[in-house]
Amino acid sequence: MTSSPKTPLLDTVEYPSDLRQLKADQLRQVADELRAEMIDAVSTSGGHLGSGLGVVELTVAIHYVFNTPDDKLIWDVGHQCYPHKILTGRRDRIRTLRQGGGLSGFTKRSESEYDPFGAAHSSTSISAALGFAVANKLNGKPGRGIAVIGDGAMSAGMAYEAMNNAEQAGNRLVVILNDNDMSIAPPVGGLSGYLARMVSSSEYLGLRSLASKAVAKISRRAHRAVGKAEEYTRGMVTGGTLFEELGFYYVGPIDGHNLDHLIPVLENVRDAEEGPVLIHVVTKKGKGYEPAENSADKYHGVAKFDVITGEQKKSSGGPPAYQNVFGETLAKLADSDDRICAITAAMPSGTGVDKFAKAHPERSFDVGIAEQHGVTFAAGLAAQGMRPFAAIYSTFLQRAYDQVVHDVAIQNLPVRFAIDRAGLVGADGATHAGAFDITYLATLPNFVVMAAADEAELAHMTYTAAEYDDGPIALRYPRGAGTGVEIPEQLEKLEIGKGRIVREGTKVALLSLGTRLSESLKAADELEAKGLSTTVADLRFAKPLDTDLIEKLMRTHEVVITVEEGAIGGLGAHVLTFASDEGLTDAGLKIRTMRLPDMFQDQDAPEKQYDEAGLNAPQIVETVLKALRHNSAGVEEARA
Amino acid sequence: MTSSPKTPLLDTVEYPSDLRQLKADQLRQVADELRAEMIDAVSTSGGHLGSGLGVVELTVAIHYVFNTPDDKLIWDVGHQCYPHKILTGRRDRIRTLRQGGGLSGFTKRSESEYDPFGAAHSSTSISAALGFAVANKLNGKPGRGIAVIGDGAMSAGMAYEAMNNAEQAGNRLVVILNDNDMSIAPPVGGLSGYLARMVSSSEYLGLRSLASKAVAKISRRAHRAVGKAEEYTRGMVTGGTLFEELGFYYVGPIDGHNLDHLIPVLENVRDAEEGPVLIHVVTKKGKGYEPAENSADKYHGVAKFDVITGEQKKSSGGPPAYQNVFGETLAKLADSDDRICAITAAMPSGTGVDKFAKAHPERSFDVGIAEQHGVTFAAGLAAQGMRPFAAIYSTFLQRAYDQVVHDVAIQNLPVRFAIDRAGLVGADGATHAGAFDITYLATLPNFVVMAAADEAELAHMTYTAAEYDDGPIALRYPRGAGTGVEIPEQLEKLEIGKGRIVREGTKVALLSLGTRLSESLKAADELEAKGLSTTVADLRFAKPLDTDLIEKLMRTHEVVITVEEGAIGGLGAHVLTFASDEGLTDAGLKIRTMRLPDMFQDQDAPEKQYDEAGLNAPQIVETVLKALRHNSAGVEEARA
Repeated sequence: MTSSPKTPLLDTVEYPSDLRQLKADQLRQVADELRAEMIDAVSTSGGHLGSGLGVVELTVAIHYVFNTPDDKLIWDVGHQCYPHKILTGRRDRIRTLRQGGGLSGFTKRSESEYDPFGAAHSSTSISAALGFAVANKLNGKPGRGIAVIGDGAMSAGMAYEAMNNAEQAGNRLVVILNDNDMSIAPPVGGLSGYLARMVSSSEYLGLRSLASKAVAKISRRAHRAVGKAEEYTRGMVTGGTLFEELGFYYVGPIDGHNLDHLIPVLENVRDAEEGPVLIHVVTKKGKGYEPAENSADKYHGVAKFDVITGEQKKSSGGPPAYQNVFGETLAKLADSDDRICAITAAMPSGTGVDKFAKAHPERSFDVGIAEQHGVTFAAGLAAQGMRPFAAIYSTFLQRAYDQVVHDVAIQNLPVRFAIDRAGLVGADGATHAGAFDITYLATLPNFVVMAAADEAELAHMTYTAAEYDDGPIALRYPRGAGTGVEIPEQLEKLEIGKGRIVREGTKVALLSLGTRLSESLKAADELEAKGLSTTVADLRFAKPLDTDLIEKLMRTHEVVITVEEGAIGGLGAHVLTFASDEGLTDAGLKIRTMRLPDMFQDQDAPEKQYDEAGLNAPQIVETVLKALRHNSAGVEEARA
Repeated sequence: MTSSPKTPLLDTVEYPSDLRQLKADQLRQVADELRAEMIDAVSTSGGHLGSGLGVVELTVAIHYVFNTPDDKLIWDVGHQCYPHKILTGRRDRIRTLRQGGGLSGFTKRSESEYDPFGAAHSSTSISAALGFAVANKLNGKPGRGIAVIGDGAMSAGMAYEAMNNAEQAGNRLVVILNDNDMSIAPPVGGLSGYLARMVSSSEYLGLRSLASKAVAKISRRAHRAVGKAEEYTRGMVTGGTLFEELGFYYVGPIDGHNLDHLIPVLENVRDAEEGPVLIHVVTKKGKGYEPAENSADKYHGVAKFDVITGEQKKSSGGPPAYQNVFGETLAKLADSDDRICAITAAMPSGTGVDKFAKAHPERSFDVGIAEQHGVTFAAGLAAQGMRPFAAIYSTFLQRAYDQVVHDVAIQNLPVRFAIDRAGLVGADGATHAGAFDITYLATLPNFVVMAAADEAELAHMTYTAAEYDDGPIALRYPRGAGTGVEIPEQLEKLEIGKGRIVREGTKVALLSLGTRLSESLKAADELEAKGLSTTVADLRFAKPLDTDLIEKLMRTHEVVITVEEGAIGGLGAHVLTFASDEGLTDAGLKIRTMRLPDMFQDQDAPEKQYDEAGLNAPQIVETVLKALRHNSAGVEEARA
């Protein structure tokens, strides 16, 4: 353990107002101390490091020049916000990042007035900043919307939609494009190539002429449609930058680690009477910390690590992560099936598609942060006879819900959805939890929805999905490591809509979907110990339901409990609907549905999150006991 | 009634293969006859007219030059596909458009192999075409993906995401930008201005040099990153067109009504070895039919009309459409509340936001086809103290589901969602039905979800939503005209989560959410006539549920039926979950949930759709009777 870094100047800065008391030539030292403090903090907490390191100077410069919190500063995604948190009254808690009860790893409105708009999913910042800007404009209030957005996030359609609407904000909107030529993985697509050409072909604005140039450019561009007439050649217009075409004043590229450049440019943009302005800043992810700079992923997300060596605490071996089981299984299946393709939206390693890509690069597609396109692209592939797997986290698939409905489900196209991070996700908190996919998918006609109870079942389901050509099919599985079961060499094609009995009993039936199966089995042990004979079923399918199995269990058991890691409207709702459709409750049946609670759960250790959600074995046992205590008048009897 | 037009040449064309037998100089006549035939057909069926008129020549040219159906032609949105349907074996059914059992008003895979990818929502075509192109590339098959997309559809982020990924397709992808300077309403935003400048500042490619130029341009642009070095000036790059920056070869603008221009350009693009190519075609919506050309909306969607005069059959007065009640109510509320804003995504008249915009232009925002941006923009407005109403059709809100979850619900921001077209929609069919919003919204923590039973309740709910600042709130209402009830001058602030008893009974309880209330009341009459005393409740809220009311009715009635115009997972699921949580079914309770069926329903007359869905009064009665016949052993007794 190293001792905390010395930070004499940073110690005088609790809020941006303190920062603004300093002279501009002191900011370099503030930035250096801020960087050291951040490295030290993340070395003890783990978390997102590379992105924060890349924006240390930018963070200092923005808070120095702009009038936060009245100017609304919105960090896109938010995982680069640790330096921002240190400068905005949260330094005392910075070592609690991503822990239960601690600071969020993202920006969060409830944490600070300096976080006017929370984030975690990408590419929302320009839309939100525009909302603030327009609200202030309507009310004649001062205050800008300032969005800081990475080049990777610019690949999402939402950012483009926002830019297309930006002109109305005038000088109240400032977009800072933080171009580090990376999102989580190297960026893809035309825009990325475009930005690279812009940077490689131009020199950074020089110090001397910088301030005047930036302003001159802004005023000069008025009435550009007319002013650019001379540029129209070759029968078509060659305009300015892509950003100018969409209505921005473009300033850049600027070295984002050079405060002598950043400060005057930001000051001039602040004082400009026209806008909106897009400032193109070039930074290095991981900047100023050698181990990060030298690593391929720039320490995007790290475990606790040693500050001197950069060595991260290794996880202790153990079972493989679900995503890797998926990626490796799919790669193997694709060896003998050349119709299988994999699609990821900028998450190759997070989804395990990197494993697939290694074996089958030509059939692996990283579409960038573009879930909408990714899903409809997959639908096009399926329509032409391929077997595409869209591997997207549960929470991010929300981005493509209409494409799932309109392009896949209505057309009944066999797109396979490999839904990672289904359920609670620990340190990433509410924004990344996969709580709603069972509900929003199982409500759709034509859809098959599976959930894996362990990594062996995931492998079987991957195979089952590959072989299923009759329509859309989804398999969901959680974040993190598997249970350690062996993955059979020979995969099994599961019968669609059929569950299995894992343990037979007579009085209580637990209907489990997905990975709470292990807790259901634990609960069954405890119930047996209390003399309550318990059946446990692994339903496997939320849709179509195994209605034969369910009806049989309902007719033969006194209490039936569904257990799922999803919000209301999912498995439990479908089971209840089936039971009431069939009149199975008419004569009395004790059914209870255990599900995620009706709240957004903050980050915490997974076990604590499950406790809070009420989805651990003791809570399953208690639900059974409480149901049994409930008398026929519908009133709970006193505890025995 | 006019007699059908004479179409001697068109009569020889049943499929594109017939078209390709003609000489190029005969195509003008084909186009003229095709236009006349289409006008005549739509005059008898109603439907989308202006868009189809604008692409008559383009349709002829594409099918003449490209090898459909092996080349996959995808019409974005699809409402311009009537000429395409006439040329692809469906002329005999063209007068059944949008009718039950007839042709869909959009492209549809099940209708024809010439419709390789269905549509109806905007901006999906490039992604889908790319899927076809890549699948063919992988399999070494011939065949391109050809997307025809309007300038309005280009404002959606999804189109941009697809363009950003297009480069990989090479010459297998052709995008035809159909620039008519309109979507449904006049287009908005930076892109629209950009396209207008391109067209106004350049001349159409001249006939003589056209063919050679187009090809020359395509081969010349190889290695453009290098070739353009000389253009980098002023410290930043000025590139080609926006489309070139994203990796396309750009050809245009071209007069889209001039077959002598279209044919050689398309032929050269077809024969080009490099790509992808974007062809910028300029057309006039409504072209060639004077009444359409002269009208403001270019006859976008029309009722049956007189071909000579263009006069449309007027609807016979009657109650106002729900959207107009919403728009007018909101406008009035905004007179005395300057925090109220309205947001539409390119649907000002469809959502009634046009009424609001007339009264409060500065607080009305048409963001273009950009639901994602629109919702997060609204969240930004709300975070800064405004009272934004995002007025979006149920089916299109699916486009912004992640923004609803991540930016609105998690942050508990008071964005108001005015959800039009909730439920079945008649002639627009499955793609436009609003079947899932109750399910996908009510599963979200923090959300309030209301449904209006009639236009008076809609007005009260609009007021209730305006006054509700505690978090997100949605109000849903159907397509079409209200029931004719009077809208009170003095609006009522409804108590959140409280329903009302509309009719009191003792044996059967019908819990209605939304506009099936009138059918529930009819059913109650019939049940009373059979001696079954029936309570009818208008629940108003799917979330939070009026649990006091529901529990009371469950404890005092023998049969409880929920009725909603939504798919599984919505009101019924929430009521069942509440009942089972509380053990209300333990001692036996006959609950049934009536909802939309687990299928995508094709277009038809609304009443027939409700019949098919089983949501009319006779079916409610039958559900009650069947439940009553169900004996305590859970088996249905024989009919009396």
